[in-house]
Amino acid sequence: MTVPRIGVTPGDPGGIGPEIVVKTLSRPSVLPPAAYVLFADSRIVAAEEKRLGLRLAAREWRPEGPREAGVFLAHVPGRSGAAAPGSVSAENGEASFRFFEAAVVEARGGRLEAVVTAPISKAAWDLAGFPWRGHTDYLAQFYPGAIMSFWSERLKVALFSHHRPLREAVAAVRKDALVDFLRSLHRALGKVPGGPFVLLVAGLNPHAGEEGRLGREEEEEIGPAVDAARAEGVPASGPFPPDTVFLRALGKKEAVVVALYHDQGLIAFKLDAFASGVNATLGLPFVRTSPDHGTAFDIAGKGVADSRSMEEAIRLAAVFSANGS
Amino acid sequence: MTVPRIGVTPGDPGGIGPEIVVKTLSRPSVLPPAAYVLFADSRIVAAEEKRLGLRLAAREWRPEGPREAGVFLAHVPGRSGAAAPGSVSAENGEASFRFFEAAVVEARGGRLEAVVTAPISKAAWDLAGFPWRGHTDYLAQFYPGAIMSFWSERLKVALFSHHRPLREAVAAVRKDALVDFLRSLHRALGKVPGGPFVLLVAGLNPHAGEEGRLGREEEEEIGPAVDAARAEGVPASGPFPPDTVFLRALGKKEAVVVALYHDQGLIAFKLDAFASGVNATLGLPFVRTSPDHGTAFDIAGKGVADSRSMEEAIRLAAVFSANGS
Repeated sequence: MTVPRIGVTPGDPGGIGPEIVVKTLSRPSVLPPAAYVLFADSRIVAAEEKRLGLRLAAREWRPEGPREAGVFLAHVPGRSGAAAPGSVSAENGEASFRFFEAAVVEARGGRLEAVVTAPISKAAWDLAGFPWRGHTDYLAQFYPGAIMSFWSERLKVALFSHHRPLREAVAAVRKDALVDFLRSLHRALGKVPGGPFVLLVAGLNPHAGEEGRLGREEEEEIGPAVDAARAEGVPASGPFPPDTVFLRALGKKEAVVVALYHDQGLIAFKLDAFASGVNATLGLPFVRTSPDHGTAFDIAGKGVADSRSMEEAIRLAAVFSANGS
Repeated sequence: MTVPRIGVTPGDPGGIGPEIVVKTLSRPSVLPPAAYVLFADSRIVAAEEKRLGLRLAAREWRPEGPREAGVFLAHVPGRSGAAAPGSVSAENGEASFRFFEAAVVEARGGRLEAVVTAPISKAAWDLAGFPWRGHTDYLAQFYPGAIMSFWSERLKVALFSHHRPLREAVAAVRKDALVDFLRSLHRALGKVPGGPFVLLVAGLNPHAGEEGRLGREEEEEIGPAVDAARAEGVPASGPFPPDTVFLRALGKKEAVVVALYHDQGLIAFKLDAFASGVNATLGLPFVRTSPDHGTAFDIAGKGVADSRSMEEAIRLAAVFSANGS
C-alpha cells in the first residue's frame, strides 16, 4: 500500500496554528497512515514542542526518498522564531506565507497528494505585502475554478461566492456563472470518495422568492441555471428556501448544499459543526483542507486551543487522497 | 390570581393548524393556567376533534364573564367547514383571516392579553383578496413598530427586516432606521420577563466587513447605529461577524441577536430550534406568538403533525402575559 503524502502548514506563528499542528501530529497513531510533512521553520516547531511538552519525532523530509508513513519536517527558514503569540506582525505574515508557498510548490510538482493548512492572518499578510485574501485566494490564481467547501459529519456546503461584500454577492447571482459553478462542483465532487453527490441549490431571497413576490432572482437566474445544469446531467435541484435547505440536507451523506453567498453557507455550517468543521478547496489537482476557524490570537500561546477541527482536516485530506485524485 | 386571557386562532383550515391547536388545547393541564379562547368556526373544531378522537371540552366564551382558567370557544362563522385538507383555497383564506381578525379585535379592545396564531397560507389570503403578507404584516398597519422575533430555549433573534428581496434588505441597512429599531426593540423587551436583555447586532458582510475590505456598511451605518443606541442607554454591541454571532448568543439567557435580514436570522434559528421555535411579535400592546413553521399542506389531515412548536408558542404567550404587558 502506498501511503499518501500530506503537507501540513502551521499558519501564522502568532496564532494557535503551531499548537494545533503539534498537538495533532504528535499522535500519528490516531491518524490515517500517511507521510505527514510539516512545512515550517524548525525553530518554531521546536519551541512549540517544548512549550506543550510534546514530541513530534519528525524526520527530515526527502521528496525523492521512499514513501513511508510518519511525520517529516521540511525546514522553511524564516525570521519569525521569536515573535510573541497573539499579535499581528509582518514577520509572521511573511513566515506563514513562505510555509504555505513551499508546500504548494511541492503539491503542484506532484510530490504531495494534499496540503492541510492551519489558519493564517489576513492582516499579517497585508502587513507583509501579500495581496491574497487567504489560502483559497492564493490558489485561485493558478486554479481559477477553485471552490470553497465545508465538510462535517452531518453537513456539506459549497460556496458560490465567498469573500465579497453582500451587495456584490447578490449582484453576482447570474445564470451563466451559476451553471459554470454547478458544472465545476459536480466534476470536482466526482473525485471525492463517498459519492455520488447531489447538489441542493439555495435560493437568494426569503422563501426562495415566493414566486417572484419576494425577489426575482429565483425565477430569472437560479431556477434556469438549475434546469440548464440538470440538462447536462448535473444532479442539481432547487432553488430551495434558504432557511430550510440546510435542514433538508442535514445528515444526508450524498447531499451538498450550494450556498449563494458566504454567510448563507457559514451561518448554517458553523452552527452545526463548530469545533469539528473542515474547509476543503475543490477543483485543484491536489487536495487542500483546513480547519474551519481562524488564528484565535486571543488564546494563542495558552495551550488551550481545541485541535479537533485540525485533526478532522487531516483525516479528510487522507480520505480524499486515498482516491488517488 | 388572575389568569391571562389568551386568544388562539387555528390558521388555514386546509393546513395543520386546526390539528395542532386541538392537540394542544385538549391537554390544558400541561399548559400554564389561562383562559384559552379559540376563535374558529365551531364546525371546523368539531370535525377536527372527531378526526383526531380528542375532546376540547370548550365552553362558550363570554368576554364580560368572570375570568376563569379553561378552554373557551368564540364561534366565528365561515364557509370553510367542508374544505379538503392540503389545498389552497379562497374560502380557507377568508376563514383564516376572519378568525385572526376577530381575535385581534378582542386583543385591541383589551379583552385578551395575548393572541397565539397557527399558520395561515399567504397564497390563500392572496386568493381571498387580502393584501397582507401574514399576521405580522396585518398587525403592522395598526402598530408600525411591530418587530418579528424568534424564541427558543437556546437562542433569541429579532429581525431588522423580514419579507423583502435580499437586494432591498441590503439597501435598507441605514444608520437612522437601525437606531430606531434598536430603541424600539429595547423598549419592547423591557416588558418581557427574563430580562434585562442585551442586543448583539450582526454585521451585514462576511467577517462583518473586515474593516471595510469586505463592505462598508459596518463602518458607515451599523457601527455608528450601535454607538448612537448605546449613547441612549440601549445595551447594544456589535457589529459581529454574521457567521459567529449566533454561536456567541447560544445558551445565553440575556442575549438577543439582531439579524439584519430574514435568512441571516432564520437560517440560524431554524437549524437550532426546528421543532420547538416560537415566533413572537414585539412592540404591540398585547402579546402575539405563533409556531415557527408553515401550514405544512403536505401532511395536513394525516394526524401526524408535531404540535410542540404550537405548545411552546402558547407557553411563551402565557409567560409574557404574566408580566401584565
